Amino acid sequence: MTRPTDVPLRADLDRLMGRLAQLADVGRDPHGGTTRLALSDADRAGRDLVVGWMHDAGLDVTVDEVGNVVGIRPGRIDGPVVMTGSHIDTVRRAGAYDGNLGVLAGIELVERLDEERITTERPIAVAFFTNEEGARFQPDMLGSLAYVGGIDVREALDAPSIDGQRLGDELARIGYAGPHPCPGSAPAAFVELHIEQGPVLERAAVPIGVVTGVQAISWQQVTYTGRARHAGTTPMELRNDAGRAAIDAAHRVHEIAHEVGAPLVATIGSLRLEPDLVNVVPGRASFTVDVRHIDDAVLDAVDGRIADAAQLVAREHGVDLDRRRLARFAAVPFDPRIRSLIEDAARRLGLATTQLVSGAGHDAQMLARVCPTGMVFVPSTGGISHHPDEHTDTDAIAAGFAVLADVVRRLAGDEERA
Amino acid sequence: MTRPTDVPLRADLDRLMGRLAQLADVGRDPHGGTTRLALSDADRAGRDLVVGWMHDAGLDVTVDEVGNVVGIRPGRIDGPVVMTGSHIDTVRRAGAYDGNLGVLAGIELVERLDEERITTERPIAVAFFTNEEGARFQPDMLGSLAYVGGIDVREALDAPSIDGQRLGDELARIGYAGPHPCPGSAPAAFVELHIEQGPVLERAAVPIGVVTGVQAISWQQVTYTGRARHAGTTPMELRNDAGRAAIDAAHRVHEIAHEVGAPLVATIGSLRLEPDLVNVVPGRASFTVDVRHIDDAVLDAVDGRIADAAQLVAREHGVDLDRRRLARFAAVPFDPRIRSLIEDAARRLGLATTQLVSGAGHDAQMLARVCPTGMVFVPSTGGISHHPDEHTDTDAIAAGFAVLADVVRRLAGDEERA
Repeated sequence: MTRPTDVPLRADLDRLMGRLAQLADVGRDPHGGTTRLALSDADRAGRDLVVGWMHDAGLDVTVDEVGNVVGIRPGRIDGPVVMTGSHIDTVRRAGAYDGNLGVLAGIELVERLDEERITTERPIAVAFFTNEEGARFQPDMLGSLAYVGGIDVREALDAPSIDGQRLGDELARIGYAGPHPCPGSAPAAFVELHIEQGPVLERAAVPIGVVTGVQAISWQQVTYTGRARHAGTTPMELRNDAGRAAIDAAHRVHEIAHEVGAPLVATIGSLRLEPDLVNVVPGRASFTVDVRHIDDAVLDAVDGRIADAAQLVAREHGVDLDRRRLARFAAVPFDPRIRSLIEDAARRLGLATTQLVSGAGHDAQMLARVCPTGMVFVPSTGGISHHPDEHTDTDAIAAGFAVLADVVRRLAGDEERA
Repeated sequence: MTRPTDVPLRADLDRLMGRLAQLADVGRDPHGGTTRLALSDADRAGRDLVVGWMHDAGLDVTVDEVGNVVGIRPGRIDGPVVMTGSHIDTVRRAGAYDGNLGVLAGIELVERLDEERITTERPIAVAFFTNEEGARFQPDMLGSLAYVGGIDVREALDAPSIDGQRLGDELARIGYAGPHPCPGSAPAAFVELHIEQGPVLERAAVPIGVVTGVQAISWQQVTYTGRARHAGTTPMELRNDAGRAAIDAAHRVHEIAHEVGAPLVATIGSLRLEPDLVNVVPGRASFTVDVRHIDDAVLDAVDGRIADAAQLVAREHGVDLDRRRLARFAAVPFDPRIRSLIEDAARRLGLATTQLVSGAGHDAQMLARVCPTGMVFVPSTGGISHHPDEHTDTDAIAAGFAVLADVVRRLAGDEERA
């Protein structure tokens, strides 16, 4: 009997890359990429495929009340699992890696452990969580949030979709309203492998990102109501131009972001004018603001400045202002011990690392509420994500898998069967 | 035999207001107001109703190849007609007055002349032109443009609708592909009564607007193409944010308008971001610019400044710029003699006047290409138009009618039958 952690566990890359490609084919979008919105028919097909692979890998699969799927490989002792995983729902016209990599790498890890006849002290669990993307139901990361008890199950089931359906009804419709209770048992630890979805690792030419935590996120919607008027017959000084107010305020948000500087990011992702006609002064205008920073206090201060600016603009243009919070996630620092395990694993594997903050939300940030949690990032080519061109090199996936495997094995206490 | 122009011709307001209300009921929109898009079923029903009234008024009605309808009351001599009229197509959820008033006032005028046994030297024509609004087919004012030979009939008939139909097919479908040749005969003069659609007359508390001309109009579309990226993971300095470019450029358009000052009006009526998601840096963004001024040279200079600004913004944000002209109408000055006739008529009727420029396009600006042309404006309550709340007081309509009647009678050379 030897301690096998000195011998790295390598992925069967044909199998892993093959499955990534196969899953990307489920929900192929005629406009490019994959569209597998949460609890759609495509999501059902994706779930069925992945659950099949989980069964093939010998996992004991359970589905909970909000559709989270957990497959467990027993340990030598009972007790809390060491969990890895992510999500398989996608945005519209998504790439093949976001979420999927973390889930399929987890299944690959279990199969490689079996093939190498490695047992672990603690059970290992591979999970995928419902509606991480938030592209169909709000809030995003809803499944993992429910898993850790951050949202009442009833409330989660009542979440409405953008197409007017109820989450609970859609779960039942696709056969994933499971019997397993939610919230679930707290794992002993959670580690998630994910693509960076940004350009930092590629720019730095570093294969492994050690994620120190997740940025605080603030989403809000700013809506101005003025008066729709004829663009030709209404002198500028007699207008209450809601569109002009929105453009001014959105402009000011970018200025504030520039004044505060990096690592703050601010994005106006949606801006809509009504009635949206070339020759009508907009009577109503609405835009979203997405602001992120590693420091919650800085983020709150920025939100305050945006609120003041939005109010000033409303007075200037004689329009009504409605400001609505869409989301606010506090910054989530990851567990220092798991960060060290990731760095140690990379060092042993001869892989350079850099610490970085996650700018995106991930299921790991929800799990961090109940157990020591960490994330491993691998580079995204061109920083592209949520797009058909999303890509991560096979070498990078091999490296990320090896680091994930090492960390999970150490957390689970592995042992090779003689 | 007396010269009757000293006795004002007053409208039968019960009849005129009743017909305005009856026509507004054709194409009632469940969301409010009236939707009678050009060559729709509702437009057919509206046309049938108005043509019926024309026949009742004894007019000799002809329909031309593009669906323009002209009803003629003979004069004592043959020769060019004195024409009045407007249009009866509407935007979506329109009010009851825009266009309709000019047409129904013309019919009312003919009936009152008959009732008072007044003949005129020249024939009087009442016309309504196809697709003035441009809400279904582009360009707007298409019927009157074709009437004066400004667009080839074949091209007009091929105009596509927003719902994928061909104008010629829709004309035939509703039974208004007439046999009368287009372009039509040049009138001796054209006078159009119309609501102001702006707030100027109401603010000045003046019942009659003497329209000096129609503003020059420039419509363009500015489109930026950058790269759609994740809002959380893409540092600000690594973005090519098409939305930010559009917001900056649109902001700059408003600044330029402010620098140039009145009577320039500039409107960003439509602004769209793609993919239009809260957490995605826009990869593409497009907005429209509507700029109007009485002086074509000023308008061209403003367009030049906007082009420079748009280019500067593109460079600043590393995005591609596409600028496309959507429309450009030259300023149209109205005939000084007809302006004087309108002022004289109002003076005799004891009605105050003010000169003003039309900020909207009207059929009259097309007729001005072929004959002396003028317009009479009456106040729009609250400056509201293209909206169910569009309203003009009955007193104001009575005043506008009396002025129109006086001007048409003088242009046509009236004479009371003994």
